[in-house]
Amino acid sequence: MKLAVVGGGSTYTPELIDGFARLRDTLPISELTLVDPAADRLELVGGLARRIFAKQGHPGTIVTTSDLDAGVAGADAVLLQLRVGGQAARLGDETWPLECGCVGQETTGAGGLAKALRTVPVVLDIAERVRRANPDAWIIDFTNPVGIVTRALLQAGHKAIGLCNVAIGFQRKFAKLLDVAPSAVHLEHIGLNHLTWERSVRLGGPDGENVLPKLIAEHGDAIADDLRLPRRVLDTLGVVPSYYLRYFYAHDEVVRELGTKPSRAAEVAEMEARLLEMYGDPALDEKPELLAKRGGAFYSEAAVDLAASLLGEGGRGGSPVQVVNTYNNGTLPFLPDDAVIEVQAGIDASGATPLAVAEVDPLYAGLIANVTAYEDLALHAALHGGRDRVYKALLSHPLIGQYEYAEGLTDRLIAHNREHLAWA
Amino acid sequence: MKLAVVGGGSTYTPELIDGFARLRDTLPISELTLVDPAADRLELVGGLARRIFAKQGHPGTIVTTSDLDAGVAGADAVLLQLRVGGQAARLGDETWPLECGCVGQETTGAGGLAKALRTVPVVLDIAERVRRANPDAWIIDFTNPVGIVTRALLQAGHKAIGLCNVAIGFQRKFAKLLDVAPSAVHLEHIGLNHLTWERSVRLGGPDGENVLPKLIAEHGDAIADDLRLPRRVLDTLGVVPSYYLRYFYAHDEVVRELGTKPSRAAEVAEMEARLLEMYGDPALDEKPELLAKRGGAFYSEAAVDLAASLLGEGGRGGSPVQVVNTYNNGTLPFLPDDAVIEVQAGIDASGATPLAVAEVDPLYAGLIANVTAYEDLALHAALHGGRDRVYKALLSHPLIGQYEYAEGLTDRLIAHNREHLAWA
Amino acid sequence: MKLAVVGGGSTYTPELIDGFARLRDTLPISELTLVDPAADRLELVGGLARRIFAKQGHPGTIVTTSDLDAGVAGADAVLLQLRVGGQAARLGDETWPLECGCVGQETTGAGGLAKALRTVPVVLDIAERVRRANPDAWIIDFTNPVGIVTRALLQAGHKAIGLCNVAIGFQRKFAKLLDVAPSAVHLEHIGLNHLTWERSVRLGGPDGENVLPKLIAEHGDAIADDLRLPRRVLDTLGVVPSYYLRYFYAHDEVVRELGTKPSRAAEVAEMEARLLEMYGDPALDEKPELLAKRGGAFYSEAAVDLAASLLGEGGRGGSPVQVVNTYNNGTLPFLPDDAVIEVQAGIDASGATPLAVAEVDPLYAGLIANVTAYEDLALHAALHGGRDRVYKALLSHPLIGQYEYAEGLTDRLIAHNREHLAWA
Amino acid sequence: MKLAVVGGGSTYTPELIDGFARLRDTLPISELTLVDPAADRLELVGGLARRIFAKQGHPGTIVTTSDLDAGVAGADAVLLQLRVGGQAARLGDETWPLECGCVGQETTGAGGLAKALRTVPVVLDIAERVRRANPDAWIIDFTNPVGIVTRALLQAGHKAIGLCNVAIGFQRKFAKLLDVAPSAVHLEHIGLNHLTWERSVRLGGPDGENVLPKLIAEHGDAIADDLRLPRRVLDTLGVVPSYYLRYFYAHDEVVRELGTKPSRAAEVAEMEARLLEMYGDPALDEKPELLAKRGGAFYSEAAVDLAASLLGEGGRGGSPVQVVNTYNNGTLPFLPDDAVIEVQAGIDASGATPLAVAEVDPLYAGLIANVTAYEDLALHAALHGGRDRVYKALLSHPLIGQYEYAEGLTDRLIAHNREHLAWA
Repeated sequence: MKLAVVGGGSTYTPELIDGFARLRDTLPISELTLVDPAADRLELVGGLARRIFAKQGHPGTIVTTSDLDAGVAGADAVLLQLRVGGQAARLGDETWPLECGCVGQETTGAGGLAKALRTVPVVLDIAERVRRANPDAWIIDFTNPVGIVTRALLQAGHKAIGLCNVAIGFQRKFAKLLDVAPSAVHLEHIGLNHLTWERSVRLGGPDGENVLPKLIAEHGDAIADDLRLPRRVLDTLGVVPSYYLRYFYAHDEVVRELGTKPSRAAEVAEMEARLLEMYGDPALDEKPELLAKRGGAFYSEAAVDLAASLLGEGGRGGSPVQVVNTYNNGTLPFLPDDAVIEVQAGIDASGATPLAVAEVDPLYAGLIANVTAYEDLALHAALHGGRDRVYKALLSHPLIGQYEYAEGLTDRLIAHNREHLAWA
Repeated sequence: MKLAVVGGGSTYTPELIDGFARLRDTLPISELTLVDPAADRLELVGGLARRIFAKQGHPGTIVTTSDLDAGVAGADAVLLQLRVGGQAARLGDETWPLECGCVGQETTGAGGLAKALRTVPVVLDIAERVRRANPDAWIIDFTNPVGIVTRALLQAGHKAIGLCNVAIGFQRKFAKLLDVAPSAVHLEHIGLNHLTWERSVRLGGPDGENVLPKLIAEHGDAIADDLRLPRRVLDTLGVVPSYYLRYFYAHDEVVRELGTKPSRAAEVAEMEARLLEMYGDPALDEKPELLAKRGGAFYSEAAVDLAASLLGEGGRGGSPVQVVNTYNNGTLPFLPDDAVIEVQAGIDASGATPLAVAEVDPLYAGLIANVTAYEDLALHAALHGGRDRVYKALLSHPLIGQYEYAEGLTDRLIAHNREHLAWA
Repeated sequence: MKLAVVGGGSTYTPELIDGFARLRDTLPISELTLVDPAADRLELVGGLARRIFAKQGHPGTIVTTSDLDAGVAGADAVLLQLRVGGQAARLGDETWPLECGCVGQETTGAGGLAKALRTVPVVLDIAERVRRANPDAWIIDFTNPVGIVTRALLQAGHKAIGLCNVAIGFQRKFAKLLDVAPSAVHLEHIGLNHLTWERSVRLGGPDGENVLPKLIAEHGDAIADDLRLPRRVLDTLGVVPSYYLRYFYAHDEVVRELGTKPSRAAEVAEMEARLLEMYGDPALDEKPELLAKRGGAFYSEAAVDLAASLLGEGGRGGSPVQVVNTYNNGTLPFLPDDAVIEVQAGIDASGATPLAVAEVDPLYAGLIANVTAYEDLALHAALHGGRDRVYKALLSHPLIGQYEYAEGLTDRLIAHNREHLAWA
Repeated sequence: MKLAVVGGGSTYTPELIDGFARLRDTLPISELTLVDPAADRLELVGGLARRIFAKQGHPGTIVTTSDLDAGVAGADAVLLQLRVGGQAARLGDETWPLECGCVGQETTGAGGLAKALRTVPVVLDIAERVRRANPDAWIIDFTNPVGIVTRALLQAGHKAIGLCNVAIGFQRKFAKLLDVAPSAVHLEHIGLNHLTWERSVRLGGPDGENVLPKLIAEHGDAIADDLRLPRRVLDTLGVVPSYYLRYFYAHDEVVRELGTKPSRAAEVAEMEARLLEMYGDPALDEKPELLAKRGGAFYSEAAVDLAASLLGEGGRGGSPVQVVNTYNNGTLPFLPDDAVIEVQAGIDASGATPLAVAEVDPLYAGLIANVTAYEDLALHAALHGGRDRVYKALLSHPLIGQYEYAEGLTDRLIAHNREHLAWA
């Protein structure tokens, strides 16, 4: 089995490698190719990757290359984890929206649109080259905004599936709070990528007891603290929103906070510099602790499970049910079939089939529908370009919605991303 | 033919009477009953109503009564135009939301929810009494928020239809700009009550030429001025939003404006006092000019047309197509069947049947879906009460959406409306 | 010695009575007259007052009257603690400014101006009647806004001095933290009423060691918590601001908070109702615990000390130095002589003489000068009335300063206070 | 007579040259040295300067140099018009404050502080070198923020005077509106640089008739339009604020506007590129029209008048009274003597002597005092550096004043200006 990781020079990669090494029984990789245009980074990351495999006795080969076509040739699955424009573009996404009084974040709101506009054409080009090299290969997209990028891939007819670590993170956190094995925790996770709610938490299987009310009653303070929302919100909703919902439920509070702090991008950039320095140390043969602060926890577990199920190896514990991003196809009846949703799905060699979802409370359905409409317009803008399409996507976003903000954001988005926008 | 007007003591009523008088060929009323608990106002308004009928030679009888059951007995149609809590409650709806930084308006946002909570139980009680008195009578609802009130009536199984003057207002305005007869102007009016867009303007019939692009090109400045939105917004959208959309597209601008001005309610209250004084003058036998500033232009025309079509008299010009509020029933496929939408519909004795609607741009569909979800929760709160239901309805509203605002608004809504909320 | 308390029917009064009883050696009162137009309240409060004197063995007589002239006749000192418009007006002061996005508070900002406009003419009338009755009587003003009211009294030539409990509150709190007797704590308290900073805290006397740096280092978290400001602000300033400074240093944060909570006035009104009910209980012969939550802690101590010094009895512990509101007279050289400042002053039968104050950091001096200018304009508006004067006072306030806010606030101030404004 | 212009490579310079040429009788320059480190720009600008002199028959020599010491040697007066960090730094000053919800402007608020911090050390170094080269030379500062920079120069004992074109701009505008010669218009211009009000407009001389009320009555709409403030503000104040006051009187409105527009710096940068291209055209021998949009109108007239008066040549029309920035010295009694104010002053070879100023309305005095305190702290921060000093200066600014804003702005100011701050 051969896997390719596009954006393999990311500082995230050792997290992934560590997972591949630990979970080699689930996913027996014979060759892993790290593809990245940044040869310097790739060398540092690739070296550490090989040392991790060696230390843990993984028999697979690790190849590094800056040649995309060569790197993906023969791959059974290609993982996409690239960042067009790097941390500099992220810094922009996190700051210029603040100039207009809007939240600055790299996946939600105006920053997320900028990222989508930069990313979609690049990902589609890569996918096309993957398809030419190997039409049967699965494309697993970790690249944000995962919902829009996955929709772009599916609309272009690719064998693609989108993956995010929010659901697995909740699964692990709840398992810990409940003192059970993670695999025993079944989430009813509904919505869109970065716009989800855990509506029930069932033990033992999808039909097990719903322990969410108990979880909130007993651990509500800890959960609310993590989300940085008041406990009272949790109690009233009775479900656990993703922490990205804070950008909605506490938008103005977050804008004020962001105005008083350095950006997350600046932190990450500094952390990356330190990580790369560590990776260069030939004595290092495991992922450093600092990496845990980089984000992306449990991401390798999710990736291994997904790849194993898609490639016919079966998930660990025999459960091929996993939270992924895929076409709606009637799962949420109030959305178009070709909307991309993030829910539990059965995964096998034919792809993802969403589990049935009980009726969604209008409190969530209304917002999901609104953001889906935005994603549609965002994808349209990413594919076809033009100031008006950008403006309309922004105006449709429930966190923006006003012409003054849409005006200010549109001009800034274009000015800050001109080099990544073919049409601008 | 007998008509009853509940809330007949409103200062609006002479506008309605004037329409009944002018359009008596379309709608031959033999008896018109004005029902209102406020006997003083009713006497003043009733007196003027009789003088208007007399002057214009209308043969119908005008009856006034404060006894609802007696008033609606035998009526073929009952028009609802009441205001629970009067201008004082409206003043509240327009001011306390501002304390939280949210728009203060009597139909949109938190104020609109307050009005729904006060109004729905009262209207349902009236409708029940109408049904007992005369199961075949049509209920025509002008009472705001028309969308939610109509939905409440339909869900309770009433023969109801909701009516608003926004669409007829645009029809008349566009007819004037185009220099054609109003009846020649066919609007493609889509959305929810007070959340609509004129998507095309066709001349001669629903299949006539769409002159909207030309209308915007030639009269865009005048239209934009009326809406108090920049011309540029109109040009970019290519459709004409209802002026209630300004509360969305320019929310923060409106909040700032409202913070610098006396409320509309205060103006209206003053105007009403002056109108009532005028109505008391036995020499007055026509609607005074001042009434035009009271709002509700063309409302009598719309009412006459609707009643005529419903009561089998046929609309003027033979076109029984009219913009009304009724069940969606698949017209907008992204909404539940039992959502109440505001679109063109064919009207006859069996009620309203929406015309087919072409696919709606996500830019509007997303917002419509979100506000529909709010209306669902709002109706739930109106029917069942309770702080949590109020909070959730507010949190779901795209103009609110944040927990801090929902908290502050919920407490204020309840405190300011306690006497009108059975459960509070 | 005879004292009169105007506004004696306040629920505060038992706090004052308790102090007079406990400190009767310092201030030997033979007759205390409680004056209040609200005869009902006065009876309840007067009854409890007599029972407190009786229980503690105070030999003085307590007289109650609604006749101002009779009540102040023969008084050596008259304490003013009235509230024009009562809690209803306060509720207004705390809410309508929020409609404009400005802080709602009864002494700071627009609400404080409203209170000044209502209060100044009433206080000047009372003072004039005191002067006619007894030209030598001291007027001690506790009525807010103390700075503006005291300035009005002094400009009209009255023997007046303003008193507030902020300074004594800090003295007691710091004494507790330092574990020393309150009388050992000398504050360098500078600024204007409700706009002050504790610049040093000296032990043993005005020339004692400054323990403020130590106090902040060791108890900074507790002090910052009380002020509801971040510790970091305290550390950077190196002085302790009055908690009213939070309305400046955290204005927008407070506005958002106020938008999510019921007003303080509502709480106080409820508390007052409960207190008055308690006061009516003939078995109650001491101030109830609940009174501590009413605000005004240590206010009776401050009043006793001040009256004793003014009436030639000498302060407790022989130190006639106290923080009061009086003419600047060059103490702060950047302010006009006839500005009223709040600083430590030597008090004797001739009145208050501010102690010398070392140069004030521009960080505080700039704000003090700005608010002094506002107070000047506010007093002008209170004395002479007129929309323009109100507008200019609001525009000059550093928390307002913008024409849109000034417009919106001016109209609301006038609309909400019309009955208390002779010129409106 | 020799003049040196430091920052002579500015695109402004041809405006200055044109003035020197036109007004050569007032100020007979024999040698003009343009000093600028940017040799490329200097060559372009210098070439045009020579062609302008030639065309207009000015006999003086124009020298260009990048060597500061050589350039200022022998100069009777040195004009400072430099911009540390160039348009890139200005772009920062105009944008990062918006991220915190504060106005982004290069002289007012946080951006102005950044400019002061970058500029003061550079100007002091230049001034020291001027003094060493020629102790009698006058330093005329046009470099913003003129108030703070002039204060820095005076405190360091330099023969300096600050100049701005706001006053001369009003003089010319009012002269036009009144249809009189500019020299007939005497302004009572009071305040601080970029924080001024025209309190009276007298014809014929300082004791002439005050035509300001008439000017406002007859031309108020035009004046208000220019200021972008409502006419009503002008009518209520009865004086004409500088357009920089809009950042105060309409702060939040401006922040919203700036959030919807590209920055002024971007416009200016583009304009500069076009100007420099024009300047390179050997056929161009006059200032191009486009330069008028660059700002700085009438600046050369003001400079010629000032230099002529200082160098003993006498102003045009014999009136050596001019609006300049100089020490207060009791002119505004509520400010320290060593504050720098902007008022009418008599100018002669000994420097500037402010004319007496009648009492200033508290509406202006309060704000002037507050901003003076800020300028004191700003200068302190510029001279001594350190995060705390920056934070305190920001906290003291009436447009900031809140700890959250001060926090967010401090970090951004330092991050964006690190290369220009020796201590950071």
